[in-house]
Amino acid sequence: MATRARKAPPLRIVLDASQSAPLHKQIGEQIRRAILERRLAAGTKLPSSRLMAMELNCARGTVLTAIDHLIAEGYVVTRAGSGISVATNLADEMLIPPGVVGQPDGVVAGEPILPKRTRALLSHKPVMQSPAGAPLIAFPIGQPDRLAFPFALWAKLLAQEWRKPAWQVAGVPHPFGHPGLREAIASYLAAARGFACEPEAVVVTSGVRQSVSLFARVVLEAGDAVWIEEPGYPGMDEALAAAEIRAVPVPIDDAGFSPEAALALAPNAHLAVVAPSHQFPLGTVLTLQRRLALLNWAKRTKSWIIEDDFDGEYRYSGRPLAPLRALDQTGRVAYLGSFSKLLFPALRLSFLVLPASLIQITERIMEAISTPASLLGQGALARFIADDHLAAHLRRTRLLYASRQQALIASAERHLTGLLDIAPDPGGMHLIGRPHRDLEPAFNDQATTAAAAAASVRVSPLSGCYRGSPQTHGLLLGYAGTPEEDIDPAIMRLQHVLGGHRQESQPGPMQRCSATQSR
Amino acid sequence: MATRARKAPPLRIVLDASQSAPLHKQIGEQIRRAILERRLAAGTKLPSSRLMAMELNCARGTVLTAIDHLIAEGYVVTRAGSGISVATNLADEMLIPPGVVGQPDGVVAGEPILPKRTRALLSHKPVMQSPAGAPLIAFPIGQPDRLAFPFALWAKLLAQEWRKPAWQVAGVPHPFGHPGLREAIASYLAAARGFACEPEAVVVTSGVRQSVSLFARVVLEAGDAVWIEEPGYPGMDEALAAAEIRAVPVPIDDAGFSPEAALALAPNAHLAVVAPSHQFPLGTVLTLQRRLALLNWAKRTKSWIIEDDFDGEYRYSGRPLAPLRALDQTGRVAYLGSFSKLLFPALRLSFLVLPASLIQITERIMEAISTPASLLGQGALARFIADDHLAAHLRRTRLLYASRQQALIASAERHLTGLLDIAPDPGGMHLIGRPHRDLEPAFNDQATTAAAAAASVRVSPLSGCYRGSPQTHGLLLGYAGTPEEDIDPAIMRLQHVLGGHRQESQPGPMQRCSATQSR
Repeated sequence: MATRARKAPPLRIVLDASQSAPLHKQIGEQIRRAILERRLAAGTKLPSSRLMAMELNCARGTVLTAIDHLIAEGYVVTRAGSGISVATNLADEMLIPPGVVGQPDGVVAGEPILPKRTRALLSHKPVMQSPAGAPLIAFPIGQPDRLAFPFALWAKLLAQEWRKPAWQVAGVPHPFGHPGLREAIASYLAAARGFACEPEAVVVTSGVRQSVSLFARVVLEAGDAVWIEEPGYPGMDEALAAAEIRAVPVPIDDAGFSPEAALALAPNAHLAVVAPSHQFPLGTVLTLQRRLALLNWAKRTKSWIIEDDFDGEYRYSGRPLAPLRALDQTGRVAYLGSFSKLLFPALRLSFLVLPASLIQITERIMEAISTPASLLGQGALARFIADDHLAAHLRRTRLLYASRQQALIASAERHLTGLLDIAPDPGGMHLIGRPHRDLEPAFNDQATTAAAAAASVRVSPLSGCYRGSPQTHGLLLGYAGTPEEDIDPAIMRLQHVLGGHRQESQPGPMQRCSATQSR
Repeated sequence: MATRARKAPPLRIVLDASQSAPLHKQIGEQIRRAILERRLAAGTKLPSSRLMAMELNCARGTVLTAIDHLIAEGYVVTRAGSGISVATNLADEMLIPPGVVGQPDGVVAGEPILPKRTRALLSHKPVMQSPAGAPLIAFPIGQPDRLAFPFALWAKLLAQEWRKPAWQVAGVPHPFGHPGLREAIASYLAAARGFACEPEAVVVTSGVRQSVSLFARVVLEAGDAVWIEEPGYPGMDEALAAAEIRAVPVPIDDAGFSPEAALALAPNAHLAVVAPSHQFPLGTVLTLQRRLALLNWAKRTKSWIIEDDFDGEYRYSGRPLAPLRALDQTGRVAYLGSFSKLLFPALRLSFLVLPASLIQITERIMEAISTPASLLGQGALARFIADDHLAAHLRRTRLLYASRQQALIASAERHLTGLLDIAPDPGGMHLIGRPHRDLEPAFNDQATTAAAAAASVRVSPLSGCYRGSPQTHGLLLGYAGTPEEDIDPAIMRLQHVLGGHRQESQPGPMQRCSATQSR
């Protein structure tokens, strides 16, 4: 039974008192490595603890502690009267060949082999890099003002919520989120967007993408087609792909999304994703006729509509049309909203209002198909809404953003006439600069975006919002998150870039307008 | 051009001063409905505002406000000299037929038509309901103590973080999470779990499921096979299904997960998901031999391992084996941990440590395939870890849970002898009660779980952790989240339930042990 013990080679243990690891850990680790790397073969007898302590110039107890751990871990075994030896049940093939010894953590022999679907995603998503050095100023898309949000109040609400959290909240929560927040959202929608919904229908999510994937996952089969707007929010097709849904881009016209054009492209689609209140990126408002036609299609074909109420809160003149959800008589519309763009992006709280017929179904399978949103800020946000801080914040930022839009237009009139045509928009958080007709034939928005970035100005290419051709070129200028004093300097740099445009029109890496957009 | 205006029928508008909606909204809404429901046909002339105000007994300005909105929305049109009439471009087919009129919001004609994959999920996930009335006491799985966490300190850290947040944090954050938290996690792992990793390798996620889906999505093709432990954490196959991966359950034995058995079942798998430190639900520790064999397989076949360090932090005696990640020489192991179970479930913060070769790749496609975790608590958690509050919390709860486990065993010895055999466990947060041999042939853990719930005690059926047969029956008793004073009363009720077990063994709806487990 007891094989003849092999004589131990010198252990070559080196102790380093300056290391943070205690000496017994250093000893144990080095013996462990020696075993794994086959420098200490199976059955090899270790020197006695007394001898090792002498050689290492440390207390014998230190060596014994190390040996105890190695015994507990199964690396060495002890037999009465015959001392300590390396375990014999660590079969050779399990051990690490000497070739790979000593590589630092995480070092890998080569590039990992990746599946096709991952490689496909990588080819679509180039690394976006700003030029080394100066940070970019101005014009991020979908960004609120960084100072307008009352963070001191927010900190107070968070602290109030968590000092003594309700057990139901700190414990295992409902997958749809904090009950108080779901109620606050329902009341807010009734007052601000004019439709009644049960708090039970509200699902708190961590973003518009999650809302879209979740809903598509519930109502559609893998491989089904969905109509999306072309151009549109670039995250949308990714969100649908996550639910294994095929997005069919439908070109929008002056009246917005056209159900007729959509039917011609993909007659069998059973879901349409639209942003009727203020289309992204064009700002088009879906006409009442189209709204009714779309609802009629959904009803007739038992299909679904996702209404992305993009920018619905920011309207500076005129009156918004009623949302589709308010017109929906047959329960075919899921309504999406997001707080990240209204308050601050890191909030990562959005919501989805389900059609009543899907509430229980989604509740039952939610945790299997989606990760519920973090509850950390939900109670604070509920108070923020219910105590009318949200309404006050929206009133303040509406004035702020309206004045920023005006400043942008005034600055463009001063500096960009004959280069870029920028029309005002009664709503939203960005404007579109279209090349003036003199500039047009040579204008490439990807190249201009790269050139602007080189001049430390952030703009986003309109063409990046298209999935296919034909692409219209233009620049998206987000003004909401741009401090007013940055607008004129940024526009002047842009003037310089556009003036010298015809000399340098090599597009850099393809950029998509989603990069700075957090929803 | 101007069609002959049709005479208006009586409008039958009813104003209700007790409603919160202002009168002009009530008027507008009722005219809008009348148009949509075709009670007011296209081209119909509306009564004059003066007349309407008289009939409704309200100010003329109220009526004019309502009409203005209807004009802006496109429902009615005005022509000089001919008053207001219903728009003619609302084609008949777009309008809502009278049949569906008057349904309250959200009412739907019938059950929605659901895709196959949703129906499949629904059939697996029955609605779990506690009996009406009394709340269940004792034995939730995966739940920490509700009072042990220092919420006052937490509230302070949250408030500190958000009073004046760094713009980089409040703005568009890195998809892998808060840099401070990623650094704190890396330091914590080095100190507590004995392996070095770069903060860049740490991805903050909102749960173990998200970590698993994300990793599987990056390294595997749709339809690929993955080895999982049988029995095991029921969320695991759902998380893999979300990445379109086929989970192959591999029965575990006394030495834990067997790579040999796994190879026999699915030789082409390229990912293994294991919980080596304390298997869920059995508590088995994967032997060193098996650990090395698994690492060797991964290296030889260029495959991957997800190491779910389940319950790694709760060990009451003995010494844990080194994690697979610490033994991994070739960068094939992704390591998972979760804070939700250590601190409080609503936190919903977990993490995934990527192999070095996958960091950049995952960074580039993260937002396309997964929703980054909320940043709200990440800064506070970073401080909680870095300032050693986590270590202190773990020391306190280790003592607390060890004493709860003892109390549970003592109580079971008093009341369950001859009914349920409960062995101690050197780690974890739950124990398994196995039917005593007298009870065994008739024992059904699903039926017992239902009977216990009827007696207001929460237990979880061991059989619910199996995906296939053969199933072993037993009860999971989570003690960590059970106040000590609840243990004895709950065990006495269980004694009563088990004593009367042979009379009433109709299983209720199939229950899975995941229900109370939030990770």
